[in-house]
Amino acid sequence: MALTITEVVARDIRFPTSRELDGSDAMNVGDYSAAYVVLKTDGGLEGHGLTFTNGRGNELCVAAIRALAPHVQGRTLEGITGDFRRFWRSLAQDPQLRWLGPEKGVIHMSTGAVVNAVWDLWAKQQGKPLWKLLVDMTPEALVAAIDFSYLTDVLTPEQAVEILRRQAPGKAAREAEMLRDGFPGYTTSTGWLGYSDEKVSRLARQAMDEGWDHFKIKVGPDLDGNMRRAALMRELIGPGRKLMMDANQCWDVGEAISQMKALARFDPWWIEEPTCADDVLGHAAIARAVAPIGVATGEVCQNRVMFKQLMQAGAIRFCQVDTCRTGGVNEVVAVLLLAARFGIPVCPHSGGVGLCEYAQHVALFDYIAVSGTLQDRMLEYVDHLHEHFVDPVRTRRGRYLAPEAPGYSIAIKPQSLDDYEFPGGRAWRR
Amino acid sequence: MALTITEVVARDIRFPTSRELDGSDAMNVGDYSAAYVVLKTDGGLEGHGLTFTNGRGNELCVAAIRALAPHVQGRTLEGITGDFRRFWRSLAQDPQLRWLGPEKGVIHMSTGAVVNAVWDLWAKQQGKPLWKLLVDMTPEALVAAIDFSYLTDVLTPEQAVEILRRQAPGKAAREAEMLRDGFPGYTTSTGWLGYSDEKVSRLARQAMDEGWDHFKIKVGPDLDGNMRRAALMRELIGPGRKLMMDANQCWDVGEAISQMKALARFDPWWIEEPTCADDVLGHAAIARAVAPIGVATGEVCQNRVMFKQLMQAGAIRFCQVDTCRTGGVNEVVAVLLLAARFGIPVCPHSGGVGLCEYAQHVALFDYIAVSGTLQDRMLEYVDHLHEHFVDPVRTRRGRYLAPEAPGYSIAIKPQSLDDYEFPGGRAWRR
Repeated sequence: MALTITEVVARDIRFPTSRELDGSDAMNVGDYSAAYVVLKTDGGLEGHGLTFTNGRGNELCVAAIRALAPHVQGRTLEGITGDFRRFWRSLAQDPQLRWLGPEKGVIHMSTGAVVNAVWDLWAKQQGKPLWKLLVDMTPEALVAAIDFSYLTDVLTPEQAVEILRRQAPGKAAREAEMLRDGFPGYTTSTGWLGYSDEKVSRLARQAMDEGWDHFKIKVGPDLDGNMRRAALMRELIGPGRKLMMDANQCWDVGEAISQMKALARFDPWWIEEPTCADDVLGHAAIARAVAPIGVATGEVCQNRVMFKQLMQAGAIRFCQVDTCRTGGVNEVVAVLLLAARFGIPVCPHSGGVGLCEYAQHVALFDYIAVSGTLQDRMLEYVDHLHEHFVDPVRTRRGRYLAPEAPGYSIAIKPQSLDDYEFPGGRAWRR
Repeated sequence: MALTITEVVARDIRFPTSRELDGSDAMNVGDYSAAYVVLKTDGGLEGHGLTFTNGRGNELCVAAIRALAPHVQGRTLEGITGDFRRFWRSLAQDPQLRWLGPEKGVIHMSTGAVVNAVWDLWAKQQGKPLWKLLVDMTPEALVAAIDFSYLTDVLTPEQAVEILRRQAPGKAAREAEMLRDGFPGYTTSTGWLGYSDEKVSRLARQAMDEGWDHFKIKVGPDLDGNMRRAALMRELIGPGRKLMMDANQCWDVGEAISQMKALARFDPWWIEEPTCADDVLGHAAIARAVAPIGVATGEVCQNRVMFKQLMQAGAIRFCQVDTCRTGGVNEVVAVLLLAARFGIPVCPHSGGVGLCEYAQHVALFDYIAVSGTLQDRMLEYVDHLHEHFVDPVRTRRGRYLAPEAPGYSIAIKPQSLDDYEFPGGRAWRR
């Protein structure tokens, strides 16, 4: 029976995280927030989606969701998913709204929220978690959902089908493995820039006890401070565990190279966001200079066209696609296929609010149906705000357990939505 | 005497241009709009600025201006201009708002509107048109207004000072020349995709009579249509005048190359926006394949870092920086300096609403103080909506006459602001 989307509700949800310096890095100090969308239907089911922001300005994404709503309201779910590529393009290439991007920043992040709410609705209707819905789609159906505009010089729809077909034989075994063991994770909760050495030490020891064996620290403009913090973390975790560093774009190209040459003594596995996320050629120069340390980026990479270039240029060894920054599942799958085409591991960006909940589905689908390998793959984990989710992520000994409830795991509890709504909710009225 | 900014007013101004298909191209059909900002001061003077949008979604830029307003309200003009780089970075790198970009899309376009309003105010206070204020600044003062973040691998502040010093000797002569002759323009008013052949012919003949000798046509996905329209325009203007083509990003890389190989017979001088504006490497591939036809882009180029790469990669032969897309005068000057560093001519994007008014100042400053040459330089002209401006552009025989009134020429008449305010103005109530 046709399910019609009768109403699009957008809400401004903000958590006052800046009070504790959770999530602080070289560039960002914020209140983790969500521009939250609910698709109401005539069948009782609801599709939920969100895009993550850092506090002030969340109202812009809420307004953008409202501007996009006419593309969804009144449509049937079947009408959308029956030609998902056309639907996606109707949002991304709206003839008036596209000027605001196109396909970047506020309008694209909000496109992602709306698109993901549709996928959440579809997965619920199918009674499957999102990753399983994707895994069960035929290569042709998946490819029909993707906009290949600006990609065909490196990836055609035919090549994408071929990539997916190649992994078909092992899918069932990998799905069983994931349901049994979960997907490998790493933790960022220990190394925020605003934390004291004492707090970092305590959190790192606790994380090792819990079974985590990859650790990430934030680095900043101050080399001495970076050296001290890197030495502390390397000493805490010993030589066997992996150490990653994250500069959050605080360096120019030359500075990134000289900092990493000094920090190399602590054996970092990757340097994340060493410079401006827009600087493909800069990342490529850094990658050449700091090898064998790998360059990672993606959380601020605006769309599939930028990922295409990062891969073409040999600029990244790890692809950290973000489920909220890009235009929703359809574009994330395009990025996974690009990465498979170039043989680059995908380690989705996570953290914030809801990113872990989203990204676990992406990582599972990528392993089971696209890449077929766990080599150099892992999913960021940050222990923030999960208590507000109806179906929160679950971890065990450093691994994400596969979500089993139907949908995209992104629904926030009704009480939390009310309490943290900005500016009228209880948390903000204090 | 210190001038304090006491209030930031943001208004949503829209002109219903889509009714006539003015401005129609392969990708955009819109209502030319302005997110308009007025800085009120305690001295009576006002600073005006705007960012251009294409209709729906203009409210997002208005909301972004309001989100940025706390960085301006209560500040003195002297406090801002005394450390203009720091002020610019306070907007571009706001620790919460930057997540929405950073430095791209809605938040960056609105940053430009606010920044330009400050420049308008400063120019009025100094009693000079903006171009003259810039021309009269010392190299050191200009460079102190620029954020060199992410540029230093190709352009340092010292190199920028050197570029400006090199042009100092001829400045007075070039200024006199511009005041006498004006700056060369070209017209886009003749070749919109929605216009009939009859209308194109009539407008082209009229433009030739008025002295224009560069003509631009829009091209789209349909090669046959492109061939027909190119043949018509080439026949109309004869072999001596320059013909440019503009694809507005409608092609993939391979398609751009094959289309331009076919269209080469009409001797196009440049192909503008042959593919996705984000695709630096794609532009570089096209540039190599279609030479000697030059590749031009810029109107959707989001910031100085993308321009840096387009220049580094040899991807463009013409830099079409946009005065509204980028973060205001401070960033536009950075792009002019990058272009001078790479020897690439700047032909600013214009049209829309207010872009001609803004861009004339940029072109004059670039010639007088940065590039020192008119070789391959010209400024787009579109004959739309100038009647709404207090100090509109003036042209004579295909050249822009230098504006003489103090400020950045961007103030819209109070009556027009009231009439076209969305949704309550007279034009929208009909």
